[in-house]
Amino acid sequence: MDIDTVNALPYEDFVDLLGNVVERCPLIPAAVWSGRPFSNLTALEAAISGFIDALPEAGKEGVLRCHPDLAGRDLQSGSLTRESREEQAGAGMHALDSAEASRMALLNEDYKQRLGFPFVICARMSDKANILRELSARCRNERAEERARGIEEVKKICHLRLQALVLH
Amino acid sequence: MDIDTVNALPYEDFVDLLGNVVERCPLIPAAVWSGRPFSNLTALEAAISGFIDALPEAGKEGVLRCHPDLAGRDLQSGSLTRESREEQAGAGMHALDSAEASRMALLNEDYKQRLGFPFVICARMSDKANILRELSARCRNERAEERARGIEEVKKICHLRLQALVLH
Repeated sequence: MDIDTVNALPYEDFVDLLGNVVERCPLIPAAVWSGRPFSNLTALEAAISGFIDALPEAGKEGVLRCHPDLAGRDLQSGSLTRESREEQAGAGMHALDSAEASRMALLNEDYKQRLGFPFVICARMSDKANILRELSARCRNERAEERARGIEEVKKICHLRLQALVLH
Repeated sequence: MDIDTVNALPYEDFVDLLGNVVERCPLIPAAVWSGRPFSNLTALEAAISGFIDALPEAGKEGVLRCHPDLAGRDLQSGSLTRESREEQAGAGMHALDSAEASRMALLNEDYKQRLGFPFVICARMSDKANILRELSARCRNERAEERARGIEEVKKICHLRLQALVLH
């Protein structure tokens, strides 16, 4: 869909189309609809990023908490959003051997216990080995650093989801 | 569930429990989890209201746009959230005669065209006749007035949804 068509959508259709560009946060595209028309995809993406950046710190943590664990309970139970399922499968999260699965589960739990939100990484720009390495390293970071780092990953995920939906 | 049990929930379970106290906005309870423990239900509700009040005006409009029309397409297609379905049914929205249904559809469309977000009212505190009267009257208000009015209704809906989930 091109940007002119996106700009002309009633908010219901705009939210149906873009509701999950930030995982489980339809509030965000629903809010940026107020700022249309967007001159191009970059401007739409900037509006979404700007909305996230303006949230209080707890709100940014809220955005992170709307994300599933990698290879976690939502993958096991089949309740991932379509976008997350495809992204996690692309990074091999559905095909971990039992040692990798245990290690991922332990590190995810450790990360959440320490920081109070999940480890978020743009799986489409990564692979199994890199995700495990990053998770292991980022577990040791402080909360403010990981909050900022997680939000950067949310924006990368959003960038790729937008590119799949709106023509540049 | 009592407030101590709610305070002790990991964020995933907190969001599973309270994810729809503001319609389709799990981001909001996910954010206020950062502020636990809450001394009582009133404090939890105040944290949610405070988060909404701190949103920019577009963000408040985003919250409204996450709400379905009364007797609208989500009710027709069966895609309402459980909470909305029960609330709309309680106010008789599933049993409008054809004249009432046409009038409701026309007024909803008029409201959305003028204001860019849906008419939101706490259906549990209302009935069919009152909803039609309010919708007809509020159609004529200005955007800022209706934004504020809609958010007040969101808070009433949230209050009742919270009371159904957390012991006072």
